[in-house]
Amino acid sequence: MTNLRVPGPTPCPDEVLAAVGGQMINHRGPEFRDLITRVHRRLQEVFQTKNDVLILTASGTGAMEAALVNTLSPGDGVLCVSIGEFGERFIQIAQAYGMRVVKVDFPYGHAADPEEVRKALRAHPWVKAVCVTHNETSTGVTNDLQALARVVKEADKLLIVDAISSLGCIPLPVDAWGCDVVATASQKGFMVPPGLAFVSMSPLAWEAYRSARSPRYYLDLGKHKAFFEKGQTPWTPAVSLLYGLDVSLEAMLRRGMEAIYAHHARIGALTRAGVRALGLSLLPVEERYASNTVTAIKVPEGVDGNRLVALLREEFGVVVAGGQGPLAGRVIRIGHMGYVREEDIREALEALGKALTRMGYRTPAPTASV
Amino acid sequence: MTNLRVPGPTPCPDEVLAAVGGQMINHRGPEFRDLITRVHRRLQEVFQTKNDVLILTASGTGAMEAALVNTLSPGDGVLCVSIGEFGERFIQIAQAYGMRVVKVDFPYGHAADPEEVRKALRAHPWVKAVCVTHNETSTGVTNDLQALARVVKEADKLLIVDAISSLGCIPLPVDAWGCDVVATASQKGFMVPPGLAFVSMSPLAWEAYRSARSPRYYLDLGKHKAFFEKGQTPWTPAVSLLYGLDVSLEAMLRRGMEAIYAHHARIGALTRAGVRALGLSLLPVEERYASNTVTAIKVPEGVDGNRLVALLREEFGVVVAGGQGPLAGRVIRIGHMGYVREEDIREALEALGKALTRMGYRTPAPTASV
Repeated sequence: MTNLRVPGPTPCPDEVLAAVGGQMINHRGPEFRDLITRVHRRLQEVFQTKNDVLILTASGTGAMEAALVNTLSPGDGVLCVSIGEFGERFIQIAQAYGMRVVKVDFPYGHAADPEEVRKALRAHPWVKAVCVTHNETSTGVTNDLQALARVVKEADKLLIVDAISSLGCIPLPVDAWGCDVVATASQKGFMVPPGLAFVSMSPLAWEAYRSARSPRYYLDLGKHKAFFEKGQTPWTPAVSLLYGLDVSLEAMLRRGMEAIYAHHARIGALTRAGVRALGLSLLPVEERYASNTVTAIKVPEGVDGNRLVALLREEFGVVVAGGQGPLAGRVIRIGHMGYVREEDIREALEALGKALTRMGYRTPAPTASV
Repeated sequence: MTNLRVPGPTPCPDEVLAAVGGQMINHRGPEFRDLITRVHRRLQEVFQTKNDVLILTASGTGAMEAALVNTLSPGDGVLCVSIGEFGERFIQIAQAYGMRVVKVDFPYGHAADPEEVRKALRAHPWVKAVCVTHNETSTGVTNDLQALARVVKEADKLLIVDAISSLGCIPLPVDAWGCDVVATASQKGFMVPPGLAFVSMSPLAWEAYRSARSPRYYLDLGKHKAFFEKGQTPWTPAVSLLYGLDVSLEAMLRRGMEAIYAHHARIGALTRAGVRALGLSLLPVEERYASNTVTAIKVPEGVDGNRLVALLREEFGVVVAGGQGPLAGRVIRIGHMGYVREEDIREALEALGKALTRMGYRTPAPTASV
């Protein structure tokens, strides 16, 4: 059995997969209307929002693009807070649509400093929206979204959040924190295969929609809202994945979001302790920003990161991710979002230790310092 | 058991659904590379093309949008041949992206006349591309794509084809007919749940890509091509649906495309004969253009089309589609694409006869005229 520990897609529970294998129905009929209405209500609970949550047949990147093109026009200013590869993705999308990007970035491994964002907003008062990555999957760093949201809302800007690898795993009360547009996807915290993406839109976001002139059709959230009111989607949706989502949301809410957050906090701490016990270092420079959904570990000096990933997969059945972009070969990442048990992490860490030993790495003797 | 006879999503064979329920894998690992490489090769066989076939996580509409935004710029002329709702969709997408649309339309129920398209191309020599719906799902009419393609190629224009409800069911030799961009989706001829879309790109289409300035990111086919060369997709794909597609393509090619085309031709003829035997009329005005994947039937005078659809579903377990756009309430549509057996059609027609009788309709006495 493979221990799939990439930061998405995550393994899916058996009952979710059984539902995903269900036969097709008419996506313009009453059964589908009941399904999407129920799923929408439950998504609102997980998002902790009264806002519309639009359901797209797309990857998370589609939801990020939808967030931008439905609220902004070419030439509009957008401040992008970047702490890694997925922060860069927001910038690339905004640039593809001719928006004016102000980039506020921080070195990989660091969280965003709300004070720097405040200063940038003062220096560029013409920006209309701020894009923030809640949990940066490429570096294993979780931003202090609540503090960042406060800064954005004080400046009266639209807040657009990439919550792809956070929502459903770590707390993100969308309404309480004032997040206008929140994009996420099915294959991480929701424990459903990839192919569905979700975008919540606040009343302020809908106001921006009405004047936003970016071209859009497939990702047009207004069309999604109009069809949702009839219990439909504008285009034929990924029905199978909605079956899985229905089952998964029901199980998540039965367990309770507080219990799920506590589980991920415990799993995150367990992973970091295990990494330290092997004498390895985390990429996140401050423990308090280390992610509870993905742990990025520095590949020790003299070890080939790509070979380590291959060895773990081929010899130990543990599938982890390497580094992305400038981090390629320099970090490995263990995903622990969604469906994950303590024993999955223990097994992965044990395999990591053995693989490193096989590659000639020796755990340093423990020292007094932490 | 429901007899799902909408024109997509179609029922899926048991072995496809079993595959769709499979556990997740790393979408950046060797298993996925093997999967997407194999699926791509088989897609090329079904498309009868040597061109690249890009695999998107999207509905068919996403593939139609990808076809336009990857080959054209704002202000570019595009001639849209429209014979129904899906012809109109190409126009809406082109307009959303600021293209200059020349519309050549024909009354619903008619096929496009290649001579009219030739005249329009002469009158508007500045158009760069022509959009054609191969099979118009809203009217049950199949265009003579081969004849239309000849006209487009004589005029040296880029040919963009919506083959969503045709490919895999009726002949469409992409290279032999000179189709530059062909868009289709998983939930019709491919017998796979919705959520994947495919776009083939000829060398001429890639040449257009290089100068096309329409904004795009999620649907950028160049990114898809670059990642495919690494055995990946740029964004996390709908892995489950790829499992199903793999199984379905293998079965389709084992059966042979000629056998599949013959089956759909037989099923189409059977459906039309049954409709006539009930004294009903087809929406297509000429039998030779009547679709072998969906049959659009005029609702007889005095019968409420919406009530008829509901009665078939609720009392007979037969799920058919009503009319779209201006045809709402005026036609019903029986889908017979992809996974369909003769008995499914016989059962649907028998139910249709009984439902109409219950609604007070009396089959007219047979007359000498056909």
